[in-house]
Amino acid sequence: MERPETLLTPGPVPVSPKVLAAQGAPLLYHRGPAFGEVMRTVADGIAYMLKTESQVLIHTSSGTGGLESAVANAFSPGDQVLVVSIGNFGERFKKITTAYGLDVQLLEYEWGLDARHEDVAAMLKDLPDCKGVFVTHSETSTGVVNDLEAIAGAVKDHPALFVVDTVSGVGAVPIEMDAWGIDIAITGSQKAIAGPPGVAFVAVSERAWEAHATSTLPRFYFDWTIAREAAERANPESPWTPAISTLMACKVAIDEIRDEGIDRAVARHALLGKATRAGLLAMGMEPFAANPERSNVVTCVRAPEGVDTSKIVSHVRKRFGLVIAGGQGKLKGKVFRVGHLGWVDRFDIIRAIAAVETAFVDLDLPVKVGVGVEATMEVFREADREFGEEVPA
Amino acid sequence: MERPETLLTPGPVPVSPKVLAAQGAPLLYHRGPAFGEVMRTVADGIAYMLKTESQVLIHTSSGTGGLESAVANAFSPGDQVLVVSIGNFGERFKKITTAYGLDVQLLEYEWGLDARHEDVAAMLKDLPDCKGVFVTHSETSTGVVNDLEAIAGAVKDHPALFVVDTVSGVGAVPIEMDAWGIDIAITGSQKAIAGPPGVAFVAVSERAWEAHATSTLPRFYFDWTIAREAAERANPESPWTPAISTLMACKVAIDEIRDEGIDRAVARHALLGKATRAGLLAMGMEPFAANPERSNVVTCVRAPEGVDTSKIVSHVRKRFGLVIAGGQGKLKGKVFRVGHLGWVDRFDIIRAIAAVETAFVDLDLPVKVGVGVEATMEVFREADREFGEEVPA
Repeated sequence: MERPETLLTPGPVPVSPKVLAAQGAPLLYHRGPAFGEVMRTVADGIAYMLKTESQVLIHTSSGTGGLESAVANAFSPGDQVLVVSIGNFGERFKKITTAYGLDVQLLEYEWGLDARHEDVAAMLKDLPDCKGVFVTHSETSTGVVNDLEAIAGAVKDHPALFVVDTVSGVGAVPIEMDAWGIDIAITGSQKAIAGPPGVAFVAVSERAWEAHATSTLPRFYFDWTIAREAAERANPESPWTPAISTLMACKVAIDEIRDEGIDRAVARHALLGKATRAGLLAMGMEPFAANPERSNVVTCVRAPEGVDTSKIVSHVRKRFGLVIAGGQGKLKGKVFRVGHLGWVDRFDIIRAIAAVETAFVDLDLPVKVGVGVEATMEVFREADREFGEEVPA
Repeated sequence: MERPETLLTPGPVPVSPKVLAAQGAPLLYHRGPAFGEVMRTVADGIAYMLKTESQVLIHTSSGTGGLESAVANAFSPGDQVLVVSIGNFGERFKKITTAYGLDVQLLEYEWGLDARHEDVAAMLKDLPDCKGVFVTHSETSTGVVNDLEAIAGAVKDHPALFVVDTVSGVGAVPIEMDAWGIDIAITGSQKAIAGPPGVAFVAVSERAWEAHATSTLPRFYFDWTIAREAAERANPESPWTPAISTLMACKVAIDEIRDEGIDRAVARHALLGKATRAGLLAMGMEPFAANPERSNVVTCVRAPEGVDTSKIVSHVRKRFGLVIAGGQGKLKGKVFRVGHLGWVDRFDIIRAIAAVETAFVDLDLPVKVGVGVEATMEVFREADREFGEEVPA
């Protein structure tokens, strides 16, 4: 039996059959009224998820395009910015700001750690002219989620724009764009929103629009002024032919999140993360994140000494069609990552734990057998007792 | 009966049910072997269509992102370039090159005209240091198709890179990237390839790679070096999470074009264009293009004096779900455009001609009744007599 791949990666993620069906439906014309409704629903839905009144711009691109959009539209050559990096995606902010000729100041942490708001505050004290602070909300390379609210507190009294990569964050971990004073929030379709990849979203505060007005970096495809002009037509449009089908799918995904409720979606991701950790730790893995209790998005664990984790990843894919992720860069072979992001419920987690246990056994690798699934089940039992019918997953 | 929209626009275009089904299929993991095969098939297929040995890079973006990719990767600030503009998309090249700080020399034509290769040669004679010549192959705003081979001859002996926007060209009109000495060719998924929108392709010649090596414009998301490194892995990848489903759909669309054969696909578009012109002209419209016989992509016509063409466009959409396009910019209300691009056959054209006639009658506008469909049918009858079973549409 050939199964479709099940994507328990930190993106792309499982999407619902309704979302897939929408993506396979006949295309709407992108300058017609029906598609205008798609554009409006999606932009409003992202604002709802981010808890913001800011305008949400839609780009046909990966999340990385959204990150570039923030850099190219709100800054000018030589602007001093502070990039806070806790992993691969912090590194990406560093590369983009460097590529665009900004004066990049770095606050870097060892992978596995999250950023300390005290450090951010101390750095900013010495950087009075800093124009932007770039922070990754959820770092999927390590499973680490920053305490964004605390960091927001450290940035709040500084004039720098607060730019947050919440590509894999929003919908899975709490974020309140307006209450926390975030100026630019970037996300993508293929994470907790549970749509297919291909679309990035950039929410732009009034302060960020002001910075945009004087920004001189070159851009065209991602230009905010052009995107806003098209989005504000009576029938909202994208300036260029957008990923029509992906946006039609996103509309359905957003409808599903509205039905579930954003806070409940976050609670679901938290519960799934807790259950995943319980199962993997019971089997003998070690959490990679220093603060794993915030890891709603992806669980990154070290395997017992001597285990090459790429073999586990490869085996569960080959035997069960289940896609989990190995380590990136220096973590290659040392960790593996189980995503619990997107259209995922408790049975996906139970399946993942069972598959990982089976892989260890198949490959004759050291693992505590017979306890992983039970530890996971106990987390769900506890949740059932606590929440009853309101249990989020 | 509510029908899905039928997109006889110059993009997005009708796509086959198989293409839609592929887009609605469960997602493949973008760093796994099955998706590597998708990446390889699509890139190879675009090279086949362009008749080139050059490497084809894949961006998740609109075609406009592909145009920006060409500008940002092969030039440096202040480089002198020649932009040849015959309409809206030439204008777009002008805007992008200007936004990126190039020294832009213009050769602009009145809308409806195509570029004269003699003019290009004369301009280049006076611009010995020119680094790039930007030409639109098929200008969908006017239906005009440039004689690209003749223009290629004018550019050939000049050291400037020859950059061609063939977003709506390749697959519908002849193009031979290598034989004609094109250095950078840009296209998109949603035109003659007959895939859904969301992906752009950029084919890069060796000379363009050399220019890239010294280019200093800022870029990251569209960076060629990064894209090439990922594409050349044993299992080809995109550096960022790509529009997975759109690319899965494109693979099927490419397979369909391979089955049909590229030259036959071009012949099909030529025949459909001829049939569309015959029908619309018989009804009393005037061709907008000075050289309509090359208009394989979209037929742009003027309606009789006093007719507001937006009413025709709006009526056929409302009554029949058929989407044709009005005029852009200064042509608004004066022309309308019927696309015959993508997964389109003779019956789509007959339907379009019948629908347009019906709209004129419904709206009590001046039209020759009872001759449009017949003129279209006669073109197909002639083609049947000429080609027999080999008739391309």
